[in-house]
Amino acid sequence: MYVVDLNCDMGESFGSYTIGRDEEMMNYVTSVNIACGYHAGDPSIMKKTVRMAIQYGVGIGAHPGLPDLAGFGRRPMEISPEEAYDMVVYQVGALQGFVQAEGGQLQHVKPHGALFNMAAKNRPLADAVAKAVYDVDASLILFGLAGSELIHAGKAAGLKTASEVFSDRTYQQDGSLTSRREPNALITDHEEAVNQVIRMVKERKVSTLQDIDIDIDAETICIHGDGASAVDFAKYIREAFEESGIQLEAIGSVLSR
Amino acid sequence: MYVVDLNCDMGESFGSYTIGRDEEMMNYVTSVNIACGYHAGDPSIMKKTVRMAIQYGVGIGAHPGLPDLAGFGRRPMEISPEEAYDMVVYQVGALQGFVQAEGGQLQHVKPHGALFNMAAKNRPLADAVAKAVYDVDASLILFGLAGSELIHAGKAAGLKTASEVFSDRTYQQDGSLTSRREPNALITDHEEAVNQVIRMVKERKVSTLQDIDIDIDAETICIHGDGASAVDFAKYIREAFEESGIQLEAIGSVLSR
Amino acid sequence: MYVVDLNCDMGESFGSYTIGRDEEMMNYVTSVNIACGYHAGDPSIMKKTVRMAIQYGVGIGAHPGLPDLAGFGRRPMEISPEEAYDMVVYQVGALQGFVQAEGGQLQHVKPHGALFNMAAKNRPLADAVAKAVYDVDASLILFGLAGSELIHAGKAAGLKTASEVFSDRTYQQDGSLTSRREPNALITDHEEAVNQVIRMVKERKVSTLQDIDIDIDAETICIHGDGASAVDFAKYIREAFEESGIQLEAIGSVLSR
Amino acid sequence: MYVVDLNCDMGESFGSYTIGRDEEMMNYVTSVNIACGYHAGDPSIMKKTVRMAIQYGVGIGAHPGLPDLAGFGRRPMEISPEEAYDMVVYQVGALQGFVQAEGGQLQHVKPHGALFNMAAKNRPLADAVAKAVYDVDASLILFGLAGSELIHAGKAAGLKTASEVFSDRTYQQDGSLTSRREPNALITDHEEAVNQVIRMVKERKVSTLQDIDIDIDAETICIHGDGASAVDFAKYIREAFEESGIQLEAIGSVLSR
Repeated sequence: MYVVDLNCDMGESFGSYTIGRDEEMMNYVTSVNIACGYHAGDPSIMKKTVRMAIQYGVGIGAHPGLPDLAGFGRRPMEISPEEAYDMVVYQVGALQGFVQAEGGQLQHVKPHGALFNMAAKNRPLADAVAKAVYDVDASLILFGLAGSELIHAGKAAGLKTASEVFSDRTYQQDGSLTSRREPNALITDHEEAVNQVIRMVKERKVSTLQDIDIDIDAETICIHGDGASAVDFAKYIREAFEESGIQLEAIGSVLSR
Repeated sequence: MYVVDLNCDMGESFGSYTIGRDEEMMNYVTSVNIACGYHAGDPSIMKKTVRMAIQYGVGIGAHPGLPDLAGFGRRPMEISPEEAYDMVVYQVGALQGFVQAEGGQLQHVKPHGALFNMAAKNRPLADAVAKAVYDVDASLILFGLAGSELIHAGKAAGLKTASEVFSDRTYQQDGSLTSRREPNALITDHEEAVNQVIRMVKERKVSTLQDIDIDIDAETICIHGDGASAVDFAKYIREAFEESGIQLEAIGSVLSR
Repeated sequence: MYVVDLNCDMGESFGSYTIGRDEEMMNYVTSVNIACGYHAGDPSIMKKTVRMAIQYGVGIGAHPGLPDLAGFGRRPMEISPEEAYDMVVYQVGALQGFVQAEGGQLQHVKPHGALFNMAAKNRPLADAVAKAVYDVDASLILFGLAGSELIHAGKAAGLKTASEVFSDRTYQQDGSLTSRREPNALITDHEEAVNQVIRMVKERKVSTLQDIDIDIDAETICIHGDGASAVDFAKYIREAFEESGIQLEAIGSVLSR
Repeated sequence: MYVVDLNCDMGESFGSYTIGRDEEMMNYVTSVNIACGYHAGDPSIMKKTVRMAIQYGVGIGAHPGLPDLAGFGRRPMEISPEEAYDMVVYQVGALQGFVQAEGGQLQHVKPHGALFNMAAKNRPLADAVAKAVYDVDASLILFGLAGSELIHAGKAAGLKTASEVFSDRTYQQDGSLTSRREPNALITDHEEAVNQVIRMVKERKVSTLQDIDIDIDAETICIHGDGASAVDFAKYIREAFEESGIQLEAIGSVLSR
């Protein structure tokens, strides 16, 4: 039988500003990545999202990002590994505060946006992120792009890791995602997106834009919570998984089997 | 024998900006209150300050403030008790992250500046601050102005508390500090300052500006780490305490006797 | 014939966050108040909103607020008159930069949220705000609550002023708005709201919650651009004004007759 | 006779934090670059610095930077040309507000830190910065690294430009500054630093680390206002210039001859 985790970014609202249909998405995913106040989120949103995640029984993750609310953490910044370490400890600690206060348990850490992408390719940065997570709590699971430096760094640091794949993005021969600046970066057709994911889960393979199959680890699948069709796609992917005999389960319980 | 804790605000630098002579002051105090990134401090400063506190063996406290770096957390803001709760959980959690990463132990929480003053008088706000501390870690000690609502709220919440007194401030008949806007708010003479504190520790009394003695709890004494004579005063107060038979000890070990 | 200005807050989005249906509202109002990056807005939003305002031919105003994005500038902060002066100069200057770059002309300044309310009652703060506006450009029109200290301060500083009334708020006998914390603060019925405004414009009177009529200057009317029925109400108020023989015109051209 | 402008970054303090010995440096320089609140500076500091500059009769410049107070605007961020345009308009406008309020005149714009370095090499970014300055006020002078894309972009946009050289930095054969990460980046000997500058001003040549002379335009010289010997070096360079027959004059009056 096949088992996989389905994760979604959440808690990205800020003050009077709302992004995402968090509560609806909670019904479909098994893990959530909660923004920690740097690229999005604020203390009130963090508390509400942690509380909601506990109520819905999904795995709770910290989603630390670059200190760039105006850019939503998507603009690469040249930070040193030490700065990366410090900002990950800070944000994971802050979310941990709410998890403790609400009586929950933190399951994982997934860097956000530009920090996620930078740590996928830059090993010293990846090592710093992994060490930060390990130092705060060595039992946490580190999420990273499947096959990336961040996954390697996490394993080297002694952490459990979760290789993440994307349903709605195309892949390059080297295992990287096609840049959003390229025309074919996104898979907009729901059926095509789901088929790609199902194959990744079952066969551990994905077809690249170069029409060559590559091996890929698919331990957790990222879906998006904003956009008009987010909830529809979440429903659709769940149903397709059921029909395909793929069971959804939070990565924490999968990895502790 | 008399025992008291001597505390100082630290880690209030930010990025390229430096405030305070933190490392020198570490030699003289028994507890430190470390800024958490809202009124001052940043992740790098927090890590360094936590590391230094562990090295010097002083009690480590979180020093959460209002989100107002430009005003150094000294400008009162009308926040709801829930907002106060949320920002205390966030900041204490963030500092807790560094304390865990460095292998230390968090001893206490002391609200900073306007948040400290507001929580001294406003019971619902004080309750929210106390509950935030309790919910993150019920074993933490809550610092508050001696006789204030924050001390009452801390006890009501089930926390250990530390009543704080000031060496360099004059007192009013109701136990409040004379406002800094008044002419006689500050005690600038070192000898006079120390005599006031020694009496507070030994006799649990302080003479007010109205020339009437009032009762006061003096469990921890605040001294300041910035200003030209900060280090000199710290040395002076330590020597005076030794001569007066007052022993300095971190509040955590005092209260766990 | 009756003439009045109809204004709306705009440009309150931030980065990836959207608030308000700005472009739709542009069709109905005669002046807009554009956020300047403190309580809301960012440089990109400011440019787009200024450009749109020029295109739609509406009067352009700066909408400076408190430095509190998380609280949307609605939480009162204890700032000094000098701090108020400085933050108004900064924000009006910043918006002025975009107005110059787009070849437009700045018409007015309206403080936002808590700054607006504080300046309505606190004369030294009102004087500082008025002086800031005057010092940047003495030809600007200052918006303030009808009958408030800000209107008095503006006149005393030598500025043209525009007394602002609210269609959807109830009034107290002293001319102040009923606090949003009170049950009857808001007028939710569109017809009732419009009737109150029409009477304020034609008879310069408003009925208070104490059932006593008071005199009121109604030179500009504030409507809101967010909320589900904002655009509907804007259409409705315009039609009602046409039927009542009230002409809508930007305050700048009204006052320069 | 030789004439050159001597400029210094100023107004880089923030809230309770102080950097630089601004008032002392005012005695020695002919132009100042005033931080605008993004990488450093706040509205109160900006007002005081503009006021001081007017009092000392030095040329006033805006010093816009990246929105990164924690990194002092020194960490490169991947921003689009449009984002660069927007943040320059915002910051120049904000400083312009204080210049107008104080009755002064803005002379120039010099991008700060990473924005200065990025605009030196990236032409689309340089064009965006130049266009922003031009659109706010076409009479402003744009400062850029001598020989850089920013100087080319400024000229192409129709702006007056000032080619900037550094007294305390070594040069590469392609006219760029030696990176601060390299061992020989800084010239720490005052006499050597001054000799380099004098030669740049008189002969329009500089010797590179490759021991080859290259041509260089030296219209304005940057000296630093922080660091222990900043004021000493400022005195020293002025005296050396007098002895060498080099006259110091604000760039605005030099270029309008």
